[in-house]
Amino acid sequence: MLTLFHHPLSSASRFIRLILEEYGIATHLIEENEWARKPEFLALNPAGHLPVFLAEHEIPLSGATVIYEYLDETRGSLRPDKQFFPANPLERAEVRRLNDWFLNKLENEVTRHIVRERIYKREMPLAIGGGAPNSQILRNARANIPPHMNYLNWLCTSRDWLAGSLLSYADLAAAASISILDFLGEIDWEQFPSIREWYMRIKSRPSFRPLLNDRIRGITPSSHYADLDF
Amino acid sequence: MLTLFHHPLSSASRFIRLILEEYGIATHLIEENEWARKPEFLALNPAGHLPVFLAEHEIPLSGATVIYEYLDETRGSLRPDKQFFPANPLERAEVRRLNDWFLNKLENEVTRHIVRERIYKREMPLAIGGGAPNSQILRNARANIPPHMNYLNWLCTSRDWLAGSLLSYADLAAAASISILDFLGEIDWEQFPSIREWYMRIKSRPSFRPLLNDRIRGITPSSHYADLDF
Repeated sequence: MLTLFHHPLSSASRFIRLILEEYGIATHLIEENEWARKPEFLALNPAGHLPVFLAEHEIPLSGATVIYEYLDETRGSLRPDKQFFPANPLERAEVRRLNDWFLNKLENEVTRHIVRERIYKREMPLAIGGGAPNSQILRNARANIPPHMNYLNWLCTSRDWLAGSLLSYADLAAAASISILDFLGEIDWEQFPSIREWYMRIKSRPSFRPLLNDRIRGITPSSHYADLDF
Repeated sequence: MLTLFHHPLSSASRFIRLILEEYGIATHLIEENEWARKPEFLALNPAGHLPVFLAEHEIPLSGATVIYEYLDETRGSLRPDKQFFPANPLERAEVRRLNDWFLNKLENEVTRHIVRERIYKREMPLAIGGGAPNSQILRNARANIPPHMNYLNWLCTSRDWLAGSLLSYADLAAAASISILDFLGEIDWEQFPSIREWYMRIKSRPSFRPLLNDRIRGITPSSHYADLDF
């Protein structure tokens, strides 16, 4: 069986889990903490980030971009019923732009700071930065949420799916990130009915079910996290 | 003619310029400062980063990853003499991993800090962070150069080209980044003869010539910057 090193609060990991579920690829999941920088993990991926996918012959593929392009080339291209890339290169470029937006820009401006301050620091040793959350970092990260929600809202109101008329990798990438902020109760859904409607459509897909069952020790997910109609 | 918004000290921009030169695509270059956040530029790319390529019908493609995948799909795939992606999906994954390493990891840990502190801050208004370089930021960025050089050295000594036996996008991405650090005199070549040998091979390609002619106001490039045999 193939293996994915992941963390339930890593957007990039959730994105790859969604794709694996969509393609029906049975995968052994191993939870990994990036901050622990374990030598065995760094041997697989010297960059030290999640996710890492052990492909055929146990060859490690590191990072969401590398893994989804690989899965698309080796699986997606054989599945006419599961085309998450449009055929037109310009439309594919739009999917890739949005993947980068949600997996890198949203992640670096918002999600990873909130996850680190609220969750990881509780388990990290003091010597490598563990301890109480830094409220200034949390405030800065939270201040970046509304502009991102406004942009997502613009996408949701002007297109059927985020990158155009069809469901694409961009919807899976965005939903992976949004689901983490929602798990942590960081999203004010009242203000954004169009995003909620889009997120409910994605969240209702069978591929999403395992993510909705994720639990993190000592954290209660937001009350509506696993509701398909919230 | 197609258009590329770029900056001579942006690794991602240099990477795309190299690809355009390799494919012989005549492109109108427009120099842009990311830090200026001009509304006309943000209208093309709301993420605000370089490069932006105006493709057919003036459709803007934003960011090096989006642009190189597009150029490969629309140009590279028609040029059997210029294959910068191997045919095997696992080998393509290795090229993508290294592109991400040099365009994102090296950039975020080293290059963009050095360029910002040493170059951009001289032109930026004080109100948005201009002024004298912050020596602590420069020290931290420079401390990250040796581990990156060691990794590049490992790639150069264990493979013919960075991603394997053939020249690939990974060599162009790495050379784009290294050429900026070399322009700024930040690389100690004495220590790394294998990297120098690899860099000389890349630098001798005709596609590299326009980069070697780049000049930045008020900055003298390192003495060997444009030498093909240094």
